[in-house]
Amino acid sequence: MFITFEGIEGCGKSTQSKLLFEELIDRGFSVVLTREPGGTEASEEIRRIILKKWEERFTPFAELSLYEAARSLHVENLIRPSLNEGAVVICDRFTDSTVAYQGYGRGLSLELIERLNLEATGGLRPDLTFLLDLPVEAAFKRLERKSLDRMESEERSFHERVREGFLEIAEREKERVVVLDGTQDVEEIFNHVLRIVLERLNAL
Amino acid sequence: MFITFEGIEGCGKSTQSKLLFEELIDRGFSVVLTREPGGTEASEEIRRIILKKWEERFTPFAELSLYEAARSLHVENLIRPSLNEGAVVICDRFTDSTVAYQGYGRGLSLELIERLNLEATGGLRPDLTFLLDLPVEAAFKRLERKSLDRMESEERSFHERVREGFLEIAEREKERVVVLDGTQDVEEIFNHVLRIVLERLNAL
Repeated sequence: MFITFEGIEGCGKSTQSKLLFEELIDRGFSVVLTREPGGTEASEEIRRIILKKWEERFTPFAELSLYEAARSLHVENLIRPSLNEGAVVICDRFTDSTVAYQGYGRGLSLELIERLNLEATGGLRPDLTFLLDLPVEAAFKRLERKSLDRMESEERSFHERVREGFLEIAEREKERVVVLDGTQDVEEIFNHVLRIVLERLNAL
Repeated sequence: MFITFEGIEGCGKSTQSKLLFEELIDRGFSVVLTREPGGTEASEEIRRIILKKWEERFTPFAELSLYEAARSLHVENLIRPSLNEGAVVICDRFTDSTVAYQGYGRGLSLELIERLNLEATGGLRPDLTFLLDLPVEAAFKRLERKSLDRMESEERSFHERVREGFLEIAEREKERVVVLDGTQDVEEIFNHVLRIVLERLNAL
């Protein structure tokens, strides 16, 4: 089972990914927790390039290409082998983030992004996706105390478009994407997450 | 004027690029010498990822995406600004290498590569390309004493396909691509190169 967490920066998805990972481990499942961009040695190197603040202009197409390169290595070397061994794979961000950030946020062609997502994943799609939705204002408050990377430093209107993008994806794919209210308490959100995951795992 | 040098590893294109750069500088032209992958700070970082020998399987699509990311940054931040300022830009490898290596060599879709080349370059094409052609056997002899990177370490049949790819590109685009015999002496090749470049520059 392949589970992804999506949402804007500061939505709480990394926290929820970790909680789910620990809970499923405690319950005796074989679980892999990973993230994008990243997850393999080379992909983590690509991540550093993506998130660094460069002096040169970082083109949206270069950004997209780097995300897709990292994804291809991640699927090939970690996600697919883990799924083949029967593990539950939990991933913090995946293809939906590319649609939301580079498509809705940067304005790149959604058709091009879908094409590259397909090439990078070989058609692998999450079985279940949690979208932690909350207003950009609320999410930004949570980021206030950390030093921001290149993506986090984008202006508010960018993150508004990204949020809209995520919500449109969820609207189109109701079977796969569960939207949760990201303003709730961590425990409250996690109760929803766990209930839904256990239902799906029992149904397998 | 945008001039590129292409060919398999060990064909002598880096040497010819440098000779042309120096000669044009001596003749008072404003000239930029650069290379792919690379040419900007971020692109050189991407180059290191592409050429490093990783333990994980490096997918052809990841390789392609990294080349295109580096190209997009290179065109945006160095090549196009330099051309706009009236410089002659000499580049060691460009889009033809991606068609030859990732298309003919790795077997990725030529249509996908053309699409990504177009996205990365914004439609910028070389005015003149020199293809230094020679048998793989002869090129490999020149590489014998250096430690080989990930691309150079590919088996001979890969490089044979790449050579074929370059020759097919040259056949399709006779106006742009000049094929030179890479087995000739450095000076002999350079005489051809310089004569053709000066003809074209005088015609501008």
